[in-house]
Amino acid sequence: MAYQSGRHFLQIPGPTNVPEAVLRAMAAPTIDHRGPDFARLTREVIDGLGAVFKTRGHVVVFPGSGTGAWEAAIVNTLSPGDRVLMFETGHFAMLWKQMAEKLGLEVDFVPGDWRSGVDADVVEQKLAADGERSIKAVMVVHNETSTGVASRIGDVRAAMSRAAHPALLMVDTISSLASIDYRMDEWEVDVTVSCSQKGLMLPPGLGLNAVSDKALAAARQAGFPRSYWRWEEMLANNRAGFFPYTPATNLLYGLRVALKMLLEEGLDNVFARHDRHAEATRRAVRAWGLEILCRQEAEHSSSLTAVLMPAGHDADAFRERVLEAFDMSLGTGLGRLKGKVFRIGHLGDFNDLMLAGTLSGVEMGLALADVPHRTGGAGAALAYLAETARRDAGLAASATAA
Amino acid sequence: MAYQSGRHFLQIPGPTNVPEAVLRAMAAPTIDHRGPDFARLTREVIDGLGAVFKTRGHVVVFPGSGTGAWEAAIVNTLSPGDRVLMFETGHFAMLWKQMAEKLGLEVDFVPGDWRSGVDADVVEQKLAADGERSIKAVMVVHNETSTGVASRIGDVRAAMSRAAHPALLMVDTISSLASIDYRMDEWEVDVTVSCSQKGLMLPPGLGLNAVSDKALAAARQAGFPRSYWRWEEMLANNRAGFFPYTPATNLLYGLRVALKMLLEEGLDNVFARHDRHAEATRRAVRAWGLEILCRQEAEHSSSLTAVLMPAGHDADAFRERVLEAFDMSLGTGLGRLKGKVFRIGHLGDFNDLMLAGTLSGVEMGLALADVPHRTGGAGAALAYLAETARRDAGLAASATAA
Amino acid sequence: MAYQSGRHFLQIPGPTNVPEAVLRAMAAPTIDHRGPDFARLTREVIDGLGAVFKTRGHVVVFPGSGTGAWEAAIVNTLSPGDRVLMFETGHFAMLWKQMAEKLGLEVDFVPGDWRSGVDADVVEQKLAADGERSIKAVMVVHNETSTGVASRIGDVRAAMSRAAHPALLMVDTISSLASIDYRMDEWEVDVTVSCSQKGLMLPPGLGLNAVSDKALAAARQAGFPRSYWRWEEMLANNRAGFFPYTPATNLLYGLRVALKMLLEEGLDNVFARHDRHAEATRRAVRAWGLEILCRQEAEHSSSLTAVLMPAGHDADAFRERVLEAFDMSLGTGLGRLKGKVFRIGHLGDFNDLMLAGTLSGVEMGLALADVPHRTGGAGAALAYLAETARRDAGLAASATAA
Amino acid sequence: MAYQSGRHFLQIPGPTNVPEAVLRAMAAPTIDHRGPDFARLTREVIDGLGAVFKTRGHVVVFPGSGTGAWEAAIVNTLSPGDRVLMFETGHFAMLWKQMAEKLGLEVDFVPGDWRSGVDADVVEQKLAADGERSIKAVMVVHNETSTGVASRIGDVRAAMSRAAHPALLMVDTISSLASIDYRMDEWEVDVTVSCSQKGLMLPPGLGLNAVSDKALAAARQAGFPRSYWRWEEMLANNRAGFFPYTPATNLLYGLRVALKMLLEEGLDNVFARHDRHAEATRRAVRAWGLEILCRQEAEHSSSLTAVLMPAGHDADAFRERVLEAFDMSLGTGLGRLKGKVFRIGHLGDFNDLMLAGTLSGVEMGLALADVPHRTGGAGAALAYLAETARRDAGLAASATAA
Repeated sequence: MAYQSGRHFLQIPGPTNVPEAVLRAMAAPTIDHRGPDFARLTREVIDGLGAVFKTRGHVVVFPGSGTGAWEAAIVNTLSPGDRVLMFETGHFAMLWKQMAEKLGLEVDFVPGDWRSGVDADVVEQKLAADGERSIKAVMVVHNETSTGVASRIGDVRAAMSRAAHPALLMVDTISSLASIDYRMDEWEVDVTVSCSQKGLMLPPGLGLNAVSDKALAAARQAGFPRSYWRWEEMLANNRAGFFPYTPATNLLYGLRVALKMLLEEGLDNVFARHDRHAEATRRAVRAWGLEILCRQEAEHSSSLTAVLMPAGHDADAFRERVLEAFDMSLGTGLGRLKGKVFRIGHLGDFNDLMLAGTLSGVEMGLALADVPHRTGGAGAALAYLAETARRDAGLAASATAA
Repeated sequence: MAYQSGRHFLQIPGPTNVPEAVLRAMAAPTIDHRGPDFARLTREVIDGLGAVFKTRGHVVVFPGSGTGAWEAAIVNTLSPGDRVLMFETGHFAMLWKQMAEKLGLEVDFVPGDWRSGVDADVVEQKLAADGERSIKAVMVVHNETSTGVASRIGDVRAAMSRAAHPALLMVDTISSLASIDYRMDEWEVDVTVSCSQKGLMLPPGLGLNAVSDKALAAARQAGFPRSYWRWEEMLANNRAGFFPYTPATNLLYGLRVALKMLLEEGLDNVFARHDRHAEATRRAVRAWGLEILCRQEAEHSSSLTAVLMPAGHDADAFRERVLEAFDMSLGTGLGRLKGKVFRIGHLGDFNDLMLAGTLSGVEMGLALADVPHRTGGAGAALAYLAETARRDAGLAASATAA
Repeated sequence: MAYQSGRHFLQIPGPTNVPEAVLRAMAAPTIDHRGPDFARLTREVIDGLGAVFKTRGHVVVFPGSGTGAWEAAIVNTLSPGDRVLMFETGHFAMLWKQMAEKLGLEVDFVPGDWRSGVDADVVEQKLAADGERSIKAVMVVHNETSTGVASRIGDVRAAMSRAAHPALLMVDTISSLASIDYRMDEWEVDVTVSCSQKGLMLPPGLGLNAVSDKALAAARQAGFPRSYWRWEEMLANNRAGFFPYTPATNLLYGLRVALKMLLEEGLDNVFARHDRHAEATRRAVRAWGLEILCRQEAEHSSSLTAVLMPAGHDADAFRERVLEAFDMSLGTGLGRLKGKVFRIGHLGDFNDLMLAGTLSGVEMGLALADVPHRTGGAGAALAYLAETARRDAGLAASATAA
Repeated sequence: MAYQSGRHFLQIPGPTNVPEAVLRAMAAPTIDHRGPDFARLTREVIDGLGAVFKTRGHVVVFPGSGTGAWEAAIVNTLSPGDRVLMFETGHFAMLWKQMAEKLGLEVDFVPGDWRSGVDADVVEQKLAADGERSIKAVMVVHNETSTGVASRIGDVRAAMSRAAHPALLMVDTISSLASIDYRMDEWEVDVTVSCSQKGLMLPPGLGLNAVSDKALAAARQAGFPRSYWRWEEMLANNRAGFFPYTPATNLLYGLRVALKMLLEEGLDNVFARHDRHAEATRRAVRAWGLEILCRQEAEHSSSLTAVLMPAGHDADAFRERVLEAFDMSLGTGLGRLKGKVFRIGHLGDFNDLMLAGTLSGVEMGLALADVPHRTGGAGAALAYLAETARRDAGLAASATAA
């Protein structure tokens, strides 16, 4: 790659652009994780995370990745051989299912087309059909990072309620937390899985669980051998501000700052910002004459947009050209979408001009890679951003632009 | 101002966006400025600056600003009452002239319209008319930061040669160095004035002089009282890697990294990048139907573009709206241009997508501020960037975009 | 605590003082973990770690802690119900044993007094007695962080060889790696467990395994359910420079710098430095008239020194006073040593003057906390440091000090 | 130099060890120096500096060094040919005097032995003898960085009052500000000169003036040509939060944090801390059997201690050995003290254990360099530190140490 001036545009759907204030916070000297300053830090981040998860339940922070948090959700609540209900919403749903199988669960896996979210009616049917209550957990991905499709968790919970089924509800919010409205307690979610490097605007290195009392009760019966991921010791130690083993100190420094930023902006504002950027992106995609992977309007992700390449064009060749020419990283197609889609991340620490730069890079890249398209996508996004900025600023609709 | 997510766009024509690698370098612990490691640092940055100035002459680095470097140029080479030739190219030329007068020089100030550069013919006439050789120095601004007009220094030198006049040639390269081609030795410049916070991609805090042997000889005769700005002690100490008083250590750390980046990209590539971004910006301005302040095609600055506001619209109200709505700082109109122009900085650590974001912000801001304009400026810039990126990538012209 | 000026002294035996160059490296923007720059980073750190482990085997880097690396060693190589041989060398040996039991292993746990290392003769006897070869692994802690006792791994291996037993040898080097000489291949260790925040001079957040071919073969038979900690996918992905799930990007930046520092100093010099600081510390302790926990001269740790408090004095009250008065964190007594010992960490990024400050803080703290002792410990350490520095500088023994 | 592990000990009397929180603050992105956030920053640092200078007068912050602030004091208040009274207290007093002469002042220079401060009786005599009131300013160095001698400014003012002389009082506080008690308003100082890199705990790059109304009135009559250093434009612009030319943005970020730290610790505590460390250092020097340069007990500097080398021993050879062996920078002998003294800086961001490390390094260096001395200096300092820490902690005198 030729020398690149200026800032890299990291527009994969996570890891996201980390605010420089967070990066600087992480560069503070490591401190004693058994000392009084550390105890204050622990409590502060645990409290802040609770607000972000919208839960009064328990929050567990592991040194690890989101994949580790998936494993923690399983091994704390279930036993080998348990039956769980999962949905093929995309690559990450597949990976979680494969993990469940590797660990010895029996997965009832509802097939999908990777362009739609979880069908709440199927949830209800499956649970209603489970007269013996053998399904121990419903495990769904809130926002499929591989497809840009967001499932409606409120509807899933409603379906479970209609079926009056006691299964646990476990939700992966890896690319939705702090980007797309998520309400753990309102939706009675039992285990929420998440991580640091998406909406929380940190580098990777923390896996998160938020845990309901019902999940905690399940943990007391769960039969999986477990040690690292055990909630019990975590929660017991956290109460005093400590951890049963050495936590990822410097990421916690960053987390403290990131939480402060999110709560200062206000979660509702954060969600509205992501919604608006996602809508602007979709307008660009449509103006280019390209197809959005997500089929249903109600399921569009506000974190990322996956775009189908025209037949005969390789998405990764396109992405490579964008990286070479414009120093922007776009998300690759994963699993069976390899080469067929590229993904635009528009989550995390982001704003209108970064989005304008991002969409401009896509548009120029399409030209450079000779991908058939119409120009004007970036312009369509701009028009939408300007119009809504006008509205947000409390001004009347513009009449000046010719 | 409402909470702002994402990166601020610092698009004033300096201070410019500092690369994060430079910022991190500056965060290294301060060291002994009389020790061996420091001596190596000194030599490294002095050598690198010579390459950037394109001179084999002497380079002086002051803790100070570009304004200090202006003063240093004067007090080292001239005497109170000396006559100098200066040109009213804009606000900074005015300020330098006012400084010259405050210090007691007699300034022959050629008036200008703030939309043109130095007229080499006038230089020749003035010098030719100076039979007594009373003009001690011709002092010009290479790139007027207040107007976006670049004077052609090679032409100025040619005019001086034609007049066979022995005056010193002093050039302010504050917003051109490392952005616009500048050739100190080839153009026989005697004193070059510059600073850290523009093309050198550092925070403010360093004033620079590059000095010819002729200027150094003049310094031995110069009558101004001076101490802080004296070159003699600086050069003598620098030879061993040290300074006559405490240098701005941590800025020098950053300078070392910034010079490495510039030389790694290659100065010709740096200049071509700035030229290309400036042309794209002008295409945007014209597409908006707005007027560029600079009158002549051959004098457009590659560092910044000053744009005239339509009559009845205040440039600062527009800038404030852009800052509020899009978290971008644009340059204000200075001196007699106050309220009449805004300036877009496109220099320093910058790339295509940052420029796309910048121009998008201007376009949306024009809409928001109800400034009469046509949409499509950002799009026009994109088209030019894409076409030239294509050429740079060695591809044939595109035929795919509809 | 009153306001504290100056640098905190982090003299727990890990996390250790992180070099500021490592902290700054970690503050670089997060990049795409599927891009070409990342692939280079991966290979660089994996290669560097191999040199530090002194192995040509396989290295695995987990987002996690050392505790996670313990678990990974177990679940990759063994099956529930397997029998393993472990030794009660201290608190961390106990914790590893408890983990093994939680996960379902049958542990033959050789009791110990927490003041001695692994007895190689017992290893030989136990293995010799295991005619059915039911012991699948010998699991030992190289350097007991809770006691400051280092077991001799070469002797353990020799004992296993004498017994001609096929058990795997697994070694925890959490507080020895890059501090105390460790030779994975020479000692035919099968799994080495380590982490980032001790001799590797990073913040916590990485768990490490180094894996022999024999261990890898065992992994193919191992019966534990596992997913996050599976070596197979890690090694397969690492070959191309990638990871099966998102790695802890910014810690890897720091790791690259830390490895460069260690290899630049030279591992033998690193070990010699730790040995010398440990000897100086022991001289101080003896001069104070206090007792070192470690019983045998040949087993003293070079990473840390655990000091017994005189009867009737609480080690934690002493530590708290040192923290209050001198802003230094010392290690607490763990498990059954709670209140009975304090631990002085002298590992990682450390030098003579930091050690002098550390021992001075201990000495002043003893006075402040009214712990019976003789003064002069810090002085005794200084004398040793000066004498050996003299020797290292190639000077004859001094005769000047009176 | 061999590879050095651990933290460098920067124990020159400035630049001092910069707190890492200040370094990290300086690594924040540069912002628009004409924008609203910057205006807040300006006011905050100007206010904080006023508190540190203990003045309700005017504070001016230049991009520059302390040397620049010397020049600013002169050119703003005086005219070429003016007569001033200065005192040969050491190297920096000499340099300031040389600057005054270079700029054209007539200096009445009271000779000194570089081991004593300003003699207030001489001030009174000189002023009393100046019947024509031709002395325009008394210019003194509060703390001579080259000698470790602090002049008593209150006594100088009292002498001036007794003489009822209208001369301005200008004081260099470069190495005393924020380290040694200084009371600008109480002592009716007219111009205080200072800089960033000593007690203010920043890297070099800021020159400071604090200015009384009387000095400001003098500025209106002063005849020196001046531009960069003019107070008038500075003060006028500062009122709105701005600067007449580009300020050193990122150093101001650091200054904001450093001021917060100083005011949080409390100036009285800051001074007491420096006094205590200076006394401990002197006890060490005396225990070594070496001679302190400063002759009078009442004039010992709390920022640094200059130590005379025994005859026949070169201070710089000793310093070099300390740097090589222990990675500590000590201050060199300046001017006529070259080779004869070394200086120990104990100012800025510092604490007991850093001092213990520092003195240990000196003691070991003396041994290594075969400088005749008694051991036990570091121990003597420790005894004093422990005893006073005990008192500060409100404990009775110790009886435990044997």
